[in-house]
Amino acid sequence: MSVQYCFGIDVGGTTVKCGLFSTGGDLLDKWEIPTRTQKNGMYILPDVAQSILTKLDEKSIMKDEVAGIGIGVPGPVTNENHVGRAVNLHWGAKNVADEMKEMTGIPTKAGNDANVAALGEQWKGGGQGYHSLIMVTLGTGVGGGIIQNDRILSGSNGAAGEIGHAHVDDTIDVPCNCGNYGCLEQFASATGIARLAKEELERTDEDTLLRRAEKLDAKAVFDALKEGDPAAERIVRRFGDILGKALSVFSVVADPEVYVIGGGVSKAGPILLEYIRDSYMKFAFPDCRNCKFELATLGNDAGIYGAARLVL
Amino acid sequence: MSVQYCFGIDVGGTTVKCGLFSTGGDLLDKWEIPTRTQKNGMYILPDVAQSILTKLDEKSIMKDEVAGIGIGVPGPVTNENHVGRAVNLHWGAKNVADEMKEMTGIPTKAGNDANVAALGEQWKGGGQGYHSLIMVTLGTGVGGGIIQNDRILSGSNGAAGEIGHAHVDDTIDVPCNCGNYGCLEQFASATGIARLAKEELERTDEDTLLRRAEKLDAKAVFDALKEGDPAAERIVRRFGDILGKALSVFSVVADPEVYVIGGGVSKAGPILLEYIRDSYMKFAFPDCRNCKFELATLGNDAGIYGAARLVL
Repeated sequence: MSVQYCFGIDVGGTTVKCGLFSTGGDLLDKWEIPTRTQKNGMYILPDVAQSILTKLDEKSIMKDEVAGIGIGVPGPVTNENHVGRAVNLHWGAKNVADEMKEMTGIPTKAGNDANVAALGEQWKGGGQGYHSLIMVTLGTGVGGGIIQNDRILSGSNGAAGEIGHAHVDDTIDVPCNCGNYGCLEQFASATGIARLAKEELERTDEDTLLRRAEKLDAKAVFDALKEGDPAAERIVRRFGDILGKALSVFSVVADPEVYVIGGGVSKAGPILLEYIRDSYMKFAFPDCRNCKFELATLGNDAGIYGAARLVL
Repeated sequence: MSVQYCFGIDVGGTTVKCGLFSTGGDLLDKWEIPTRTQKNGMYILPDVAQSILTKLDEKSIMKDEVAGIGIGVPGPVTNENHVGRAVNLHWGAKNVADEMKEMTGIPTKAGNDANVAALGEQWKGGGQGYHSLIMVTLGTGVGGGIIQNDRILSGSNGAAGEIGHAHVDDTIDVPCNCGNYGCLEQFASATGIARLAKEELERTDEDTLLRRAEKLDAKAVFDALKEGDPAAERIVRRFGDILGKALSVFSVVADPEVYVIGGGVSKAGPILLEYIRDSYMKFAFPDCRNCKFELATLGNDAGIYGAARLVL
């Protein structure tokens, strides 16, 4: 009986994404179960365990053919698999890996969801072939994950890679979700881009495609940019200036080979990378200017890929 | 014959510091040799090798009692012991570790001098007891080294920890030594503090101890601060604001347990940490606010301690 399978689990606030993988990294089966957050999220891990055991049964896979279960959770995870807290899941501190192993009899490793997604992109996505990278997820917020020498950099509080909360601006007077003022997330997320767009439209009376947009969101801005709209160009330039400059600072800390840009905003495509890179090159330390910029390719599956990779 | 010794070597631009250590970390002997940079620095490593062999002879130590030679060099070093270039030594690319091993018959590991100093402080200095730290060396420039899980974080170009070149200011119109504008080093080094002091004195006619200082340098500023001088307080406040804010950004990348502050400026003592920490706490991501601040304790010996640690 040889070991030939593993599971990658990505626990989100509303659904748990599950993947059955070959140890070579092929996604063999993919499904979702709801995340039951009631009673401090006490059902979440048992539900996942049950779903895995059912899948093994359905596929006639023996436990000793399974290398392990990797699980990404939306909260800080240090190297020791301890989860400090996961607000969205209503969890307090718990050792996810030990609990899953107990319930399934299968070795388990846990990681923070953003870090695990970075590992997924490095293994099978936009970061393939690189050994050190920073993943930047531009969604409702800005998330991040750092891979160094093929391993997740967790940090002492599991907060390494929380790059959305890098301070980048001293003038903003609305607070970030974290309570601070001037976080990268307030400028480079989808929400941040929409705010920059609103500011730009208020600044002038200039006619722009954006005044006729159904919804003034990040997608509208990038769509207008592709039509050559000057106001959209200024908004994206400002977004790129702020993000590229921040990445130049991250590079003198972690010195990655590549930035992998993902999240909803990255659907704008390669043009996004141009604006980020233009600014990065202006501020980057000379030794770090050879850094590459790639788009993420795994989308919502990055988490299950990375989780599976944790146990291989 | 048991292994009980190792060497820690710190190659500087004018002298090479050498240490003979017990494998327990006691510094048994310490000496220096000149750094001969002539002929593209071709004599430097042979001189070091000869000095080590002479020391072994003098102390009647057999080679198989030596765990290894660790060597810190002033240039980028990746995990593979390759030195990209070391301008101060007039070196091109070379594999320092292989060359030293060839000449001495003793296993050798190399590291960047700033990273190696960080490892030294973590092992036997201000960072003792911590497993992840960022060392910040405030000297003529600003250097840095990052330790994660007891190991040096080198980065893909050996540029991880080059935190002196983080962009922190958009307004300065004089260039940094690296060619960029607005690097942390331009504000937080001894040179930077002297510049901030000059600016402050030009800004007002206010009477201050600093106008009577023999030399308007970082030491004069901290001396005046300790006398309660308001202008000195504003200068140190500005220095602390810029540095603390930068460290808050580094924390969302590497999330260290502690910042260890060394270099000439750190001779100002604990008061320095207060100003850095005040600013840090204003900008730090909530999960990173438990970070500690310590002064370096090994001074110029940090390099030989860290180099020795490389091979243990």
